[in-house]
Amino acid sequence: MDVAAYIEGNRERFFADLKEWLAIPSISGDPAHHADVRRSAEWLAGYLRGQGFPTVEVWETGGLPAVFAEWPAADPDAPAVVVYGHHDVQPVEPLAEWHTDPFSPVEKGERLYGRGASDDKGQVFFHTLGIAAGLAASGATAPPVTIKLLVEGEEESGSAHFPDLLRERRERLACDAVVISDTTMWSADVPSMCTGMRGLTEASVSLYGPDIDLHSGSFGGAVPNPLHAMASLLAALHDEDGRVTLPGFYDGVVPLTAEERELFARLPFDEAAWLKTAGNSGAAYGEKGYTTLERVWARPTAEVNGMWGGHTGPGGKTIVPREAHAKISFRLVAGQEPRAVQEAFKEFVAANTPAGIRSEVHIPAGGVRPCFSPIDSTAVQAARRAMEKAFGKEILFTREGGSGPEADLADILRAPLVFVAVGLDDDQIHAPNEKVEMPLLLKGAEAAAYLWEELATALR
Amino acid sequence: MDVAAYIEGNRERFFADLKEWLAIPSISGDPAHHADVRRSAEWLAGYLRGQGFPTVEVWETGGLPAVFAEWPAADPDAPAVVVYGHHDVQPVEPLAEWHTDPFSPVEKGERLYGRGASDDKGQVFFHTLGIAAGLAASGATAPPVTIKLLVEGEEESGSAHFPDLLRERRERLACDAVVISDTTMWSADVPSMCTGMRGLTEASVSLYGPDIDLHSGSFGGAVPNPLHAMASLLAALHDEDGRVTLPGFYDGVVPLTAEERELFARLPFDEAAWLKTAGNSGAAYGEKGYTTLERVWARPTAEVNGMWGGHTGPGGKTIVPREAHAKISFRLVAGQEPRAVQEAFKEFVAANTPAGIRSEVHIPAGGVRPCFSPIDSTAVQAARRAMEKAFGKEILFTREGGSGPEADLADILRAPLVFVAVGLDDDQIHAPNEKVEMPLLLKGAEAAAYLWEELATALR
Repeated sequence: MDVAAYIEGNRERFFADLKEWLAIPSISGDPAHHADVRRSAEWLAGYLRGQGFPTVEVWETGGLPAVFAEWPAADPDAPAVVVYGHHDVQPVEPLAEWHTDPFSPVEKGERLYGRGASDDKGQVFFHTLGIAAGLAASGATAPPVTIKLLVEGEEESGSAHFPDLLRERRERLACDAVVISDTTMWSADVPSMCTGMRGLTEASVSLYGPDIDLHSGSFGGAVPNPLHAMASLLAALHDEDGRVTLPGFYDGVVPLTAEERELFARLPFDEAAWLKTAGNSGAAYGEKGYTTLERVWARPTAEVNGMWGGHTGPGGKTIVPREAHAKISFRLVAGQEPRAVQEAFKEFVAANTPAGIRSEVHIPAGGVRPCFSPIDSTAVQAARRAMEKAFGKEILFTREGGSGPEADLADILRAPLVFVAVGLDDDQIHAPNEKVEMPLLLKGAEAAAYLWEELATALR
Repeated sequence: MDVAAYIEGNRERFFADLKEWLAIPSISGDPAHHADVRRSAEWLAGYLRGQGFPTVEVWETGGLPAVFAEWPAADPDAPAVVVYGHHDVQPVEPLAEWHTDPFSPVEKGERLYGRGASDDKGQVFFHTLGIAAGLAASGATAPPVTIKLLVEGEEESGSAHFPDLLRERRERLACDAVVISDTTMWSADVPSMCTGMRGLTEASVSLYGPDIDLHSGSFGGAVPNPLHAMASLLAALHDEDGRVTLPGFYDGVVPLTAEERELFARLPFDEAAWLKTAGNSGAAYGEKGYTTLERVWARPTAEVNGMWGGHTGPGGKTIVPREAHAKISFRLVAGQEPRAVQEAFKEFVAANTPAGIRSEVHIPAGGVRPCFSPIDSTAVQAARRAMEKAFGKEILFTREGGSGPEADLADILRAPLVFVAVGLDDDQIHAPNEKVEMPLLLKGAEAAAYLWEELATALR
């Protein structure tokens, strides 16, 4: 029996089981549902045991539990692969906008509706069917690579304890690659793989002038105005080509290769439609020399998220205000270090603070490192072959503009990331009426089934 | 009997009468005291009748009343002079910081404490003593110019009905010069005359980008950010020499003459001490090529009074915000028209709004025209001679950075302004413990006594 036939033969059972899991409201962001998150972990652990995983453990963290399941390859020298997903889900408000109960999953045509159907229970679940299909097709009793499934329980509430969990369990999680199944494809017709996510670091800056707001008649024009200084400082963040001016900001940035740019350009991107999704933005704008997709996926940014100072209420107030404030975030790409950007920002502020103004920079703890897997890397090419076999067509590449805990996986486990996922941008994740395309989940299972053979060969 | 002897002989009576008037809490900004403002007008009208003014009228306005008193010259061809002051006062909060009751005037040494002692009842009042002294010294029964005393009742609450009053009463107020007694001198040791006040026009600008705040991971770096656009727009308001960049902003600005600059430079200005009064500002800063006094008195400005947009609360929020706002005011000097500056600002905003951003400019009604009397003008030179005779030393010149209704007087009555006043910057006007230096009020009366002869000769 081949993989596709096995999957087709087991689809009813697969979706029935998935629906049972989706019915558990594992909302990690809501303390009232923390017991449900624990129940979700226990349910998954039980299910994975039933699927034949020799080792299944619920891992406690400082917060909500993750599930770990390991299925060793028969060959002790075979590569090991961590598969990452999460079993917690987003809140469901506003409930009135749901057409069905978010925790009573319902099939309509080829779609399955319910919170978590796409993000991320459905995508975790296709791996279980994929492994079973692979074993059925090969007749083996163990997969060709050691599979270490790690299913987090706090992704939707910020993964606060995840880095610690990875560090504590680093030996158990030792691997040659990490497969992430928590992203989207370009579209149902244009299957694709993500190859990177931008990182993030944030900062705030305050500029202080006089001790008090001054009367602009008596003092205006003769003392430095913190709002003028802030406007100049923020304006100086970008040059006229839209490039960020922090010293050394682009040092080490991994450039887009000609092949990536060519593959991005082949995606059927409709800029007018995209601008509509961008809050009806009136124009595309960004770093000169790059397309819109390149700008949001593969180029770093400095974005002013907020600024304020002086009189902001109704009417006029003719003052030289005492202070000005701004919040800024930087999206980072491969080759950039949050800490280096933070230092460069401090340097930039110091250099752009005029005489008579005092500046303070505050960098909140944290920051997210970018992650990236070159498209010509061994693991990505192996996954691409598995995806192409499942979908029967060429797989293109995307990236994502923001990121979650993926970079921690790459950094702490020191293994390349591979994104194998079948969600769509219109799956309504984080919104009412979340759904998943059932045929795509089955394609995901099929790709996962082929993936282990491909990785076993490629990573050996 | 000469002027000085008359004044010395009548000082006790003068201060006793002034204290009676100061005891009336004529706070125009507080509706609870509007009856007191009316009482103040009636008190003054009665007093002026007692002083011999042939015509005394209380002029009703749409708000609180002004007092008009006319004393015609014997010679029907003599010039006419309007004397402007106001009989309303500032509120007195915070009351706890007053060492004495603000409406129970108290002499301490050579100072008289009480609300309105300097701003402006005391300065209106010295004219009554001046006229009496002049008449006593000359033995005449009428002054050498027709004196038209106009004492407003709404100056401290914005002079809302004053321009209309001037227009309605223009014929009664016809004059050859307007004497303003509502300003300050450089110091008790350095008597001076103000020769101009900056005008004011205000504007607000809003920049709109996407309909909603966008996720900066998904969209950052590829759509225009209204905060970036606002920062660039505000930064572009000034060039690197601190000059305002609005098109035509300096067209027609009356330049400082070499004589004015030289006289300003002779004022004993202590920049370090001034910076302390400027809220401990860390440095002087402004238009290149001008001193601090020139900048605040005689050069126009663009001052950002407030700006805001995006996330301004605690913590970070990684958005491309939908909008940005700013409030801006312009101080204007002689030769500038508020309306022209408003149009130039609209033009500037249009030219500095990038593609994909929509801008809106709002110009509040009103605006204050600048006023200015050249130091070599006939009326100013006449007043300078009167002041020099009273003070026995050279009179220097100043200007003021902000202004009240003075420009309306010049514009509507079409007469030159002359500032004859003896307030000091440390009189605590608008603050607790307002006081006036009694010897300076008497010097004011003396200067006023000489002024009519000087003006009678100079303006004929």
